[in-house]
Amino acid sequence: MNEALFTVNNLWILIAATLVFIMHLGFATLEAGLVRRKNVVNILFKNAMIIAIGLLTYYIVGFNLMYPGTNAGGFFGFAGFGLHLPEGEAGGMAYADGAYTYWTDFIFQAMFAATAATIVSGAVAERIKLEAFLLFATVFVAISYPITGMWKWGGGWLDAAGFYDFAGSTLVHAVGGWAALASVLLLGPRLGKYGKDGKIKPIPGHSMPLATIGVMLLWFGWFGFNGGSVLSADPMAVSLVFVTTALAGAAGAIGAFILSRLLFGAYDLSMVLNGILGGLVGITAGADLMSPGEAIVIGLIAGAIIPLAVVFFDRIRIDDPVGATSVHLVCGIWGTLAVGIFGAKAGWQQLWVQLYGTLAIGAFTFLFAFVLMYLLKITIGIRVSEEMEIKGLDITEHDLEAYEPGPATEPSLQFSSMASV
Amino acid sequence: MNEALFTVNNLWILIAATLVFIMHLGFATLEAGLVRRKNVVNILFKNAMIIAIGLLTYYIVGFNLMYPGTNAGGFFGFAGFGLHLPEGEAGGMAYADGAYTYWTDFIFQAMFAATAATIVSGAVAERIKLEAFLLFATVFVAISYPITGMWKWGGGWLDAAGFYDFAGSTLVHAVGGWAALASVLLLGPRLGKYGKDGKIKPIPGHSMPLATIGVMLLWFGWFGFNGGSVLSADPMAVSLVFVTTALAGAAGAIGAFILSRLLFGAYDLSMVLNGILGGLVGITAGADLMSPGEAIVIGLIAGAIIPLAVVFFDRIRIDDPVGATSVHLVCGIWGTLAVGIFGAKAGWQQLWVQLYGTLAIGAFTFLFAFVLMYLLKITIGIRVSEEMEIKGLDITEHDLEAYEPGPATEPSLQFSSMASV
Amino acid sequence: MNEALFTVNNLWILIAATLVFIMHLGFATLEAGLVRRKNVVNILFKNAMIIAIGLLTYYIVGFNLMYPGTNAGGFFGFAGFGLHLPEGEAGGMAYADGAYTYWTDFIFQAMFAATAATIVSGAVAERIKLEAFLLFATVFVAISYPITGMWKWGGGWLDAAGFYDFAGSTLVHAVGGWAALASVLLLGPRLGKYGKDGKIKPIPGHSMPLATIGVMLLWFGWFGFNGGSVLSADPMAVSLVFVTTALAGAAGAIGAFILSRLLFGAYDLSMVLNGILGGLVGITAGADLMSPGEAIVIGLIAGAIIPLAVVFFDRIRIDDPVGATSVHLVCGIWGTLAVGIFGAKAGWQQLWVQLYGTLAIGAFTFLFAFVLMYLLKITIGIRVSEEMEIKGLDITEHDLEAYEPGPATEPSLQFSSMASV
Repeated sequence: MNEALFTVNNLWILIAATLVFIMHLGFATLEAGLVRRKNVVNILFKNAMIIAIGLLTYYIVGFNLMYPGTNAGGFFGFAGFGLHLPEGEAGGMAYADGAYTYWTDFIFQAMFAATAATIVSGAVAERIKLEAFLLFATVFVAISYPITGMWKWGGGWLDAAGFYDFAGSTLVHAVGGWAALASVLLLGPRLGKYGKDGKIKPIPGHSMPLATIGVMLLWFGWFGFNGGSVLSADPMAVSLVFVTTALAGAAGAIGAFILSRLLFGAYDLSMVLNGILGGLVGITAGADLMSPGEAIVIGLIAGAIIPLAVVFFDRIRIDDPVGATSVHLVCGIWGTLAVGIFGAKAGWQQLWVQLYGTLAIGAFTFLFAFVLMYLLKITIGIRVSEEMEIKGLDITEHDLEAYEPGPATEPSLQFSSMASV
Repeated sequence: MNEALFTVNNLWILIAATLVFIMHLGFATLEAGLVRRKNVVNILFKNAMIIAIGLLTYYIVGFNLMYPGTNAGGFFGFAGFGLHLPEGEAGGMAYADGAYTYWTDFIFQAMFAATAATIVSGAVAERIKLEAFLLFATVFVAISYPITGMWKWGGGWLDAAGFYDFAGSTLVHAVGGWAALASVLLLGPRLGKYGKDGKIKPIPGHSMPLATIGVMLLWFGWFGFNGGSVLSADPMAVSLVFVTTALAGAAGAIGAFILSRLLFGAYDLSMVLNGILGGLVGITAGADLMSPGEAIVIGLIAGAIIPLAVVFFDRIRIDDPVGATSVHLVCGIWGTLAVGIFGAKAGWQQLWVQLYGTLAIGAFTFLFAFVLMYLLKITIGIRVSEEMEIKGLDITEHDLEAYEPGPATEPSLQFSSMASV
Repeated sequence: MNEALFTVNNLWILIAATLVFIMHLGFATLEAGLVRRKNVVNILFKNAMIIAIGLLTYYIVGFNLMYPGTNAGGFFGFAGFGLHLPEGEAGGMAYADGAYTYWTDFIFQAMFAATAATIVSGAVAERIKLEAFLLFATVFVAISYPITGMWKWGGGWLDAAGFYDFAGSTLVHAVGGWAALASVLLLGPRLGKYGKDGKIKPIPGHSMPLATIGVMLLWFGWFGFNGGSVLSADPMAVSLVFVTTALAGAAGAIGAFILSRLLFGAYDLSMVLNGILGGLVGITAGADLMSPGEAIVIGLIAGAIIPLAVVFFDRIRIDDPVGATSVHLVCGIWGTLAVGIFGAKAGWQQLWVQLYGTLAIGAFTFLFAFVLMYLLKITIGIRVSEEMEIKGLDITEHDLEAYEPGPATEPSLQFSSMASV
């Protein structure tokens, strides 16, 4: 391994980390776009805080829970608090066979950590208490996410069993999705979403441009999320991952386009947007294993799953304002299983491992999230009052509206009273 | 060629592809900002779909039409459907003299492909039928764009003739602009744009922040668009391209600022924004050939062209809501000709080749687009009904408004009826 | 130094320049979000123009003022107008010990140059005359910024004295902050901000999503701002800078969260957003010197400073609509001093040098900005008329509203009059 190759490998992981970072803006704008105007400041606040919480808890405990080095049985390990740079080349060129430094390893993984909690924030939007959410996110990201992450990426028992999850269809996305599901079950639907007469009331988002910006930024960042997960700048591997990631996202759009057209009749923008995300989540577990054609098939199916899953969750009265469970949980499971069906590792044996891997991680995560959220529910409470929900969280939790009230007719006059003070 | 150099070259093209990708969000937000509130979902939908269509058709046929390998006469060639990775090093370090892999070649070019159709989407906004547009975009991107692209970049007859177009002032931008012009001619202006009394009614966009976000993201992505077109990470070449691209965009802003101030009296934001784009389109054909000073001159002229072209198209009643023909067609031609006037290749002979190259590609593209759009017009129809146009495409095609209706006076009360269900 | 290492080093600085570029969109959206709806076009216009002005003046004089090569006394030098590529390898591999080319050096520094003026644009928003601002920005960026920049980065007297400012807590951020302070003192507060009864009227921004997009884009770009300031792709150095930059931003959010909760009681989104920026400004001077833990402490303190500084400036009736002086001036000074308190260079001697360095640069910058703005005030005038301020600058300076007036009740009908023309 020479210095130049080390430098370029390391540089790519850092740039990939930067791309993953911007996914948090993608989540923030997507979720902000899909909630109502009265809850926009609240969701932006949560997303800004989650990044901070994710990075800091990963520094304090997460990194050393996820990569404990030793694997006592492979279920749990901890290498101590904080970061401890190995001396000399042990933290540099020798750290990961010349692929990246100790600091790079930390920052790339840290950027992933907050993602799981961000997925939850969309599903519980518009009715969760802010303190409850922040506490939930802190504990979940600090403890639950790195433990299941260790099972595979930290060399734990699922890794030993042959479970495969390249960049986190299960370890990141389904994990976030399971936590979202547990939270929503305890939280209940938004007021007015499901009428007493059995009618389902659609509650459209307040800004489709924001939602679109979010999805496109997520796709943009996904090239770092998947491409960086090669963990080197290996030309063939990284470029194949770029191709499969791009094509699966594109196919996801088409899959959702076709199925939502058939099911609903209209050209549904939010379905196409979630279809893109579904395709991206779907390819993530096997982005390095698939041919371009296989990536397209996986993406098409993931995209087609979206409208079905959205309708399904609405039928069983699980109210998820942004479709996070459909995108991250359902397509995350699909992507994980797809590793056993398509590509270089396809086979019954692999499919079986993929299945019990996703179920094991799902069971742990769901239980952890459910117990944690339940404890919050019976202590500080997790749901805002009806009055707060009706008034909106922006005014009641933040004393701030997301937008200056628009002009009725004469924009230039509206501040005249202010000026005359 | 050593492995480290191969790795860094390849990495740069992949990162450049990522930057080109985000230009699609730039186009989406720019176009969304410049249309009216009632057509925002429609333009976002089109732009999301175009990326998917562009990537998938380029996978199916485009790449092999644009780079057929053999050039039978140099006008047309096809290397078969889908992607076929050459075996071993033939798809890797040996593929492009150690510059990039086969997959990288595909993904970088694929990111460009959708651009041409995106340019059209802006020009035909607010009145085209969605199905007609999607069909047009699919066929145009799948067939017309790669054929003329092959003439130069695929080693075809214009390449043999000495025509130069570094990153696509003609091959991408003017091609999109010609298709936009053909489409708009068949489609006609928006209702109410040109009064019976000869008056031209300005129809301002619905969100200048969105438009500004769009232009800045496009400039950001342009560093990949032009910088990646070096097709390696060669330090001197890529850094010069960064300098010329940055300065031409800046000069475009100044050119448009000065001329719009002289012509219209006001400080016109949309002119400055389109001036930046004009400068960027203008430098694109010769970004690697120009000195910084020449880049500034090219950008200044391109920027000054913008207000003139916008006024000109309005005078001849060609209604282009976002100014796409002014930016991409007029400045695309200017940039192509500028290669014969300034920089390393300047000369009468080169200017002549640049002229007939741009005309040849323009003639083919205009004809292709005109016939295709005409066929759609006489079959499924290309224009929405007057009623749909008045109501807006968001409600009529998508059954969704871009924004939650704003509060009249009391934002906190508006959802009370919903909550009381 | 081998070719591959040269190529990857150079590539990183170019990519870092691209990341710094997008910070200008960050500033534009942050400032646009924090002003009122009636002044949005104006702030977007200023920010678009500043980039152009910054890049072009840096080409004409700035680069050669900042890096004159010779240092006659170390206070001032000038290497002539325009760019002059050293011949052959002197502009290439030999230019900076194989780290980057002459063109790369220029473009990376040029991207920084406009930042200082952009900081001013936020502070003077909503009441400054456009021409006055553009003239101020041009002269300030062309002359003042590069002169003080030379004192340290160009090898001037402060560099000789041992002053340390890794990526510009003082040289970029505090410089912008001092100029903002001088400008605001001459300009006065917005109408209605401070009532005759001594009451301070909060004037919230018009769009919190735009403000959030701005902060996240700034953080994204900061990885290039700080990471690129390593001036090579050195794996250990760049990766450490990524870690300290990420953690300081995160800690800034937490610091502002805690203190604003204690002071104001509410969960204040704008404080958390400015806290992130404060943390980033704070770490910038010593991002390469700090351990992760030290970065967190610096960020926490910077974040906690934000609510205090905002309240302080409001008390002394310095009206800064976006909090630019709190973020860039106060946290810039804090970050500069922190180099003497924490990390590899900590010590009384260093702290003393940091103090007089920041004061020397502050004194020069404040004086330059004050005199320049004063000259503009007594000649063309710097403040718009009361009537213009009340009506808003969008209508009065640009004849354009930022947003299409929203629908009152029936969005689909509002354009019917237009269509009936």
